[in-house]
Amino acid sequence: MMKEFCGIFGICGDVEAARRTYLGLYALQHRGQESSGIAASDGSKITACRGMGLVRSVFSKEDLFDRLRGTIAIGHNRYSTTGCSGLENAQPLLTKFKGGQIAAAHNGNIINARELRAMMEEGGSIFQTTSDTETVLHLIARSRKETIEDMIIDALSQVDGAYCFVFLTANRLIAARDPRGFRPLCLGRKDDAVVVASESCAFDIIDAEYLRDLEPGEMIVVDEEGVRSRRVPVIHDHSFCIFEYIYFSRPDSIIFGDKVDKIRRKLGKQLAKEAPAAADLVIAIPHSANTSALGYARSSGIPFEIGLIRNHYVGRTFIEPLQQERDLDVRIKFNPVSGVFKGKRVVVVEDSIVRGTTLKQIIRLLRGAGAREVHVRVSSPPVKSPCFYGIDISTSTELIAASLSVDEIRDHLAADSMAYLSVEGMLKTVARKSDYCTACFTGNYPTAVPEDFHKNCFGCGERKL
Amino acid sequence: MMKEFCGIFGICGDVEAARRTYLGLYALQHRGQESSGIAASDGSKITACRGMGLVRSVFSKEDLFDRLRGTIAIGHNRYSTTGCSGLENAQPLLTKFKGGQIAAAHNGNIINARELRAMMEEGGSIFQTTSDTETVLHLIARSRKETIEDMIIDALSQVDGAYCFVFLTANRLIAARDPRGFRPLCLGRKDDAVVVASESCAFDIIDAEYLRDLEPGEMIVVDEEGVRSRRVPVIHDHSFCIFEYIYFSRPDSIIFGDKVDKIRRKLGKQLAKEAPAAADLVIAIPHSANTSALGYARSSGIPFEIGLIRNHYVGRTFIEPLQQERDLDVRIKFNPVSGVFKGKRVVVVEDSIVRGTTLKQIIRLLRGAGAREVHVRVSSPPVKSPCFYGIDISTSTELIAASLSVDEIRDHLAADSMAYLSVEGMLKTVARKSDYCTACFTGNYPTAVPEDFHKNCFGCGERKL
Amino acid sequence: MMKEFCGIFGICGDVEAARRTYLGLYALQHRGQESSGIAASDGSKITACRGMGLVRSVFSKEDLFDRLRGTIAIGHNRYSTTGCSGLENAQPLLTKFKGGQIAAAHNGNIINARELRAMMEEGGSIFQTTSDTETVLHLIARSRKETIEDMIIDALSQVDGAYCFVFLTANRLIAARDPRGFRPLCLGRKDDAVVVASESCAFDIIDAEYLRDLEPGEMIVVDEEGVRSRRVPVIHDHSFCIFEYIYFSRPDSIIFGDKVDKIRRKLGKQLAKEAPAAADLVIAIPHSANTSALGYARSSGIPFEIGLIRNHYVGRTFIEPLQQERDLDVRIKFNPVSGVFKGKRVVVVEDSIVRGTTLKQIIRLLRGAGAREVHVRVSSPPVKSPCFYGIDISTSTELIAASLSVDEIRDHLAADSMAYLSVEGMLKTVARKSDYCTACFTGNYPTAVPEDFHKNCFGCGERKL
Amino acid sequence: MMKEFCGIFGICGDVEAARRTYLGLYALQHRGQESSGIAASDGSKITACRGMGLVRSVFSKEDLFDRLRGTIAIGHNRYSTTGCSGLENAQPLLTKFKGGQIAAAHNGNIINARELRAMMEEGGSIFQTTSDTETVLHLIARSRKETIEDMIIDALSQVDGAYCFVFLTANRLIAARDPRGFRPLCLGRKDDAVVVASESCAFDIIDAEYLRDLEPGEMIVVDEEGVRSRRVPVIHDHSFCIFEYIYFSRPDSIIFGDKVDKIRRKLGKQLAKEAPAAADLVIAIPHSANTSALGYARSSGIPFEIGLIRNHYVGRTFIEPLQQERDLDVRIKFNPVSGVFKGKRVVVVEDSIVRGTTLKQIIRLLRGAGAREVHVRVSSPPVKSPCFYGIDISTSTELIAASLSVDEIRDHLAADSMAYLSVEGMLKTVARKSDYCTACFTGNYPTAVPEDFHKNCFGCGERKL
Repeated sequence: MMKEFCGIFGICGDVEAARRTYLGLYALQHRGQESSGIAASDGSKITACRGMGLVRSVFSKEDLFDRLRGTIAIGHNRYSTTGCSGLENAQPLLTKFKGGQIAAAHNGNIINARELRAMMEEGGSIFQTTSDTETVLHLIARSRKETIEDMIIDALSQVDGAYCFVFLTANRLIAARDPRGFRPLCLGRKDDAVVVASESCAFDIIDAEYLRDLEPGEMIVVDEEGVRSRRVPVIHDHSFCIFEYIYFSRPDSIIFGDKVDKIRRKLGKQLAKEAPAAADLVIAIPHSANTSALGYARSSGIPFEIGLIRNHYVGRTFIEPLQQERDLDVRIKFNPVSGVFKGKRVVVVEDSIVRGTTLKQIIRLLRGAGAREVHVRVSSPPVKSPCFYGIDISTSTELIAASLSVDEIRDHLAADSMAYLSVEGMLKTVARKSDYCTACFTGNYPTAVPEDFHKNCFGCGERKL
Repeated sequence: MMKEFCGIFGICGDVEAARRTYLGLYALQHRGQESSGIAASDGSKITACRGMGLVRSVFSKEDLFDRLRGTIAIGHNRYSTTGCSGLENAQPLLTKFKGGQIAAAHNGNIINARELRAMMEEGGSIFQTTSDTETVLHLIARSRKETIEDMIIDALSQVDGAYCFVFLTANRLIAARDPRGFRPLCLGRKDDAVVVASESCAFDIIDAEYLRDLEPGEMIVVDEEGVRSRRVPVIHDHSFCIFEYIYFSRPDSIIFGDKVDKIRRKLGKQLAKEAPAAADLVIAIPHSANTSALGYARSSGIPFEIGLIRNHYVGRTFIEPLQQERDLDVRIKFNPVSGVFKGKRVVVVEDSIVRGTTLKQIIRLLRGAGAREVHVRVSSPPVKSPCFYGIDISTSTELIAASLSVDEIRDHLAADSMAYLSVEGMLKTVARKSDYCTACFTGNYPTAVPEDFHKNCFGCGERKL
Repeated sequence: MMKEFCGIFGICGDVEAARRTYLGLYALQHRGQESSGIAASDGSKITACRGMGLVRSVFSKEDLFDRLRGTIAIGHNRYSTTGCSGLENAQPLLTKFKGGQIAAAHNGNIINARELRAMMEEGGSIFQTTSDTETVLHLIARSRKETIEDMIIDALSQVDGAYCFVFLTANRLIAARDPRGFRPLCLGRKDDAVVVASESCAFDIIDAEYLRDLEPGEMIVVDEEGVRSRRVPVIHDHSFCIFEYIYFSRPDSIIFGDKVDKIRRKLGKQLAKEAPAAADLVIAIPHSANTSALGYARSSGIPFEIGLIRNHYVGRTFIEPLQQERDLDVRIKFNPVSGVFKGKRVVVVEDSIVRGTTLKQIIRLLRGAGAREVHVRVSSPPVKSPCFYGIDISTSTELIAASLSVDEIRDHLAADSMAYLSVEGMLKTVARKSDYCTACFTGNYPTAVPEDFHKNCFGCGERKL
Repeated sequence: MMKEFCGIFGICGDVEAARRTYLGLYALQHRGQESSGIAASDGSKITACRGMGLVRSVFSKEDLFDRLRGTIAIGHNRYSTTGCSGLENAQPLLTKFKGGQIAAAHNGNIINARELRAMMEEGGSIFQTTSDTETVLHLIARSRKETIEDMIIDALSQVDGAYCFVFLTANRLIAARDPRGFRPLCLGRKDDAVVVASESCAFDIIDAEYLRDLEPGEMIVVDEEGVRSRRVPVIHDHSFCIFEYIYFSRPDSIIFGDKVDKIRRKLGKQLAKEAPAAADLVIAIPHSANTSALGYARSSGIPFEIGLIRNHYVGRTFIEPLQQERDLDVRIKFNPVSGVFKGKRVVVVEDSIVRGTTLKQIIRLLRGAGAREVHVRVSSPPVKSPCFYGIDISTSTELIAASLSVDEIRDHLAADSMAYLSVEGMLKTVARKSDYCTACFTGNYPTAVPEDFHKNCFGCGERKL
């Protein structure tokens, strides 16, 4: 179904549950800007609010202070990875089943969702959304187990792929991470309350303490009795997504047990070792490559410079019909500080390259600002294969490294030199390299590769206000 | 679950399907102002648009001309009868099941929905809305029959209560009316296309021809092959809702095979016979009582006058905190033409009385405008019992005629005289009186009376734009 | 400049001043739906709120209860009569001049505005809007008189044309009507407060008492001292706009000292005398012709019927591209009650005809509904000349009666017979016929005819939220 | 009147005039986020669009491609520095005067506006806004000169204070900078078109070439004939605002003839010389202090680190009622990268300190993240006096450095050490130190100090959509 690269959050045991969730989602905004939602339970009834747009515009004061009552809450930010992105698919999804009300929010991608849906449709189920969350809620509702916890474990046992779930029942918060551990899910504590979040930066904003990651295959149940840990009875090798370190997570987060900033800095240092450059200065494509560029500069001894100013007011603009204007889409976002580049040999550090379009334009801007040489250094290996585990790295046809060699890419970008980090070099930066999935670089998929992966969207009905 | 007093529309075989549906819903706006939706099929894929508000504000040009493609479409206007009225419950509901996509829209109220839901939840189903439509879609999906038509008949065979459905599959329009025929459903023709609608006024706006009502228990299937008529294998006496004639339908519609205007006029004439008044003029509470007041005037020989001006710009106003202002909520809607009433004896014709609040204030306004005597005449019997079949006549505690006698109501309203039409008199106006449900007047319910009728709403999650 | 057909309201001495103004504007909504505004003074500072749209959507609760403080307020509803209709021109216009703050709202049309503007521009003034209100505020500010009252009288002495003004200073409400009295302006009392309004229906909604009209040329000043009446020192014959009785005012209003409903009824009766018809029933084009149709029916003895149902949910629709659908724009607004017309000879009463487009379509609908004969009767004379005094009767080229004879109009409309009320007949219905302006029927303008009347709009800047 | 810190733009001779202006305003968004507007002339008529909010949300495609026609345009971004900030005050202001239409946009603050207004009110003028722009338009309209150029020079000769204006007439673009040159105004060229803008970054986005700054006191007139330069006949010493270099302008801009980035870097280096620190790393408060922090790091040899992550999704949030949560308002915007600070001695570089509230909280966050010592270094001198020339440095009571010594500020912030750049050090970074205004640091005002500076707002009427 749909790739769901998202941010999730859950809290149990806090009278400010909905407001803390709101702040947590706020800190996780980079993981999804398309829609946002919160569900809260007052012990007997669950209420949910969902909407299209940024966290700050979805929720009203009334939602946060009047409607979303109770001491348990879950939240979700959604990043659209397909065209199928109506309010329909906004989460948390709230349903009623034989066990009462249940809400769920999800980050990941279930690769056997199609088979599971077909099987359940055969058995008489109807589907109103295209989200994996609905698939799993169906599995839960169909389970013959007696308790909600057993029902969830029963459901998750049938599921293959990448997932992190937070569930909300009338009186419980339940969180689960898939046995391979593709996506991060952190466990923390805020006074007496238990919190879970995709990244630890969501704990910092509410002054909560990071305790640890959920283990791959672990499910925790939080209620008035306290926290219980259980396991999904499926065992796999770990497959943590190394792209979370390279690009997606915030540098101030801890995920997979390590600081993102630290790993990202190591990537830059390793890149400097593998691919030095005779240059006068190092710049980053802001902001995601800032930390690895700093690592590169530190390790190489070449001064780090702030050379590209990014316009933070970027949003939808009506520039398309002006596109005869060369490089406008990049110029609207970035402007080189001309004095920095005049006559200089420049190392440009980027965290990863998908299609290369933006980078090509930036290099042209840098030359226009007087750069004598431009040396591209990428703090990850060439991305050659699509991801089936929740990151929007699409079909290979769009990946420049799938069809061009490094030299060809250099020529395409019109760079003076070009180097990627090696897979081995990348893996040197993490604690246990066997724990990580490198499929997008190597094509070594830790699961069976789903067929017809992109053909599953049925025309979902869009709902408007 | 929820009472769904609504307007529905369907069309098959017209390249302008979505636009015609839009116009049809426009003509049916009086049957529901809370939300509106259209689903259309281009032969292989169904698209739906739904939103809160009036027809004219829900759909954009882009929706009607780009998104809702195809030659088959269904539409729905929803009237909120409970607090549970989020976008969640807007229709048509679009789902996917083993037979592919199916969309459905409904007008009526299924009285065994609760039992059906509990049974299906036990069998592993999940529910995302509180609408009867979802219940029936589940029944369809769980049917073991082979064709979609048989599956729908199978589902409807298990259902008790009042319903009119329009279903949309990739290549078929299917419409069904319950065996008692509580709500109207008209069949028409627009050139080569087949149309169905709650009232025939939806045909007039698109210049379509009214053919006949669907029979109670009839299901019609329309596709490229033509129109087939089938029957739900359940037989009951007819129970047409006489309130459709009294108040709800538009006077320019044909329903139950007869012109609403004609019946409403007869109600007024019969009222004049049963309850004459020594008066100088007859006025109506505009606009719903206009036609019966004209009938009363014609039969009694007392001149008909236009005495109350209605403000058509009424909408949500912030008048509550001004409510110390006597009668403001009525005054904001109606203003008496003072010259008409000075020193006169006035017959005020109203179509029906639920709580009597507005009428009491109007009478006060009329006296303020100089009326010497005010004689209330109601063109229907006293409403004493709640309706379980889709009309929002709520719990008996709110019905003034459930606790007060006619004389007491007269005193409460401060009228000089007061008379209702008799049940017998009312039934004289229709073709076959045994065809009609009079439960709200007589308490004679044509079905078993559901228990706990109002306790079924589970806290549904509201979705916002 | 722009024709400003509008509704105005003012109140002084009421702690609910802004809320009463809001209700007053609500009752005057028919006089202008384009924009609305209120200005209120707390004795030292004036605050104003203006917006595009209906009264109910322009003002928030916060505006009415927090922002618009004080015991004096004025309000304005604006009807766009030109393309030049941005927020820029919304009223009341609030300015600061040597006398402090002053707000003003206007209904009418100043025919020498162009000359006045040119003169003041020559003297160094700048204009930010195209409204007459700004012109008069400039005149006030330039006056050498000492008191605000004298300054206003000085300003109005230089002005020619149709106007009713309400002004608001920090501690005074001032209202003025032009010496010919083109537009109505009523004076009333609500407890201790003084109220003025374009029509008396604005008094009814706040339960205020109608006292009298302002005299032509009268200016009243209301403050803590009470009410003072003064006169603009210009004398003209009266020229009350008879079209206010025919069409524009609400039937429940009193204007020019008489009940609109009463005059409108007389117009219908006179029409029946002048132009009888051999017919079976009389119908009105709802709602504006209802009263005169009733008069026609009463006088002629032909039964009055309700034969056209009007859809009150009409608003902006996307029907233009559907216009190949014959008569859709009328059908979306009106539907004939078919039973009424079958085989009948019908008199259709309309209050006035401008272009005749709608009427032509209605006649076609009536014939489609079975009418055997259609006899058009118009309760006013043929409109042949444009109006320069605030009513949107445009250039003669758009007026059907300016170029066609009655018989030709009949043929154009495809009516069986056609008659207008005579000018003499029309004037019989009012108290003193010499008091009235009949220029749009007779071309006898009570003022000099302005040249280049429509060429004055300078491209005003639109302001958006 | 109001301090108007804003961004302005103008272009003449480009068929894409409105779209280029849109892009220019986009690049100048940091100079004003409250409202935005564009006026364009097609040679005979000027059209304007204004609205509240960011550039990207104010203008529709229709505005840019249909409404704002012509080859000359001006634009304005407004930064609200007072409570008085309705649509009323959005610019460009479009008016009509004896010379035809004229639009104007302004950046600066006219210190004798009050006297000028009082004088003109006495002479019969009315004011609809509180902006200086209206004041100057009045002066222009009242001028007895013959040409528009002379009229503007005549008007500007009477004005004292800080201003940069762009004017638009039907066929001319006119730009002017005050004789002291408080605010920057750059002149550039885009193919055959002439452009002016507050900062050169607005040229880069449209690929225009920076030529030079307008001279203080220079007025340029651009039309089909070409560019003419004239002078306002008032001579003063230069008083360029050094705060533009310190904080307000974008680092990629050229203003006052020099690169902002270069000066800002020098400020950091000079700071390192004046106030060294024994520390392990240097961080900036992002993003405005990035460049000076880099300068400090480079000069001191202490490594530069990226230690604070800024959330770019910040907007209005409902956090106030959550404020019992310590430091939430800062935590929502910034999060320290914990690994960077553990056990380290940190230099925190900030560009300037007004009240110190945010910095105090950031220091607390840094200590929470493990920083052993925190040394605050500010790349400008203590701000002790309010600014009357357009920058929102308010009354002295809010300025921490106006009442506390550097040591007291250090204690207040709970920093381990604290140092500001000296005035002399600051002036070493610019080309000619006598050209700059340092009033906010030294209290040496280059003009007379206006009395009652903040008492001039009259209650302006807010306009809504």
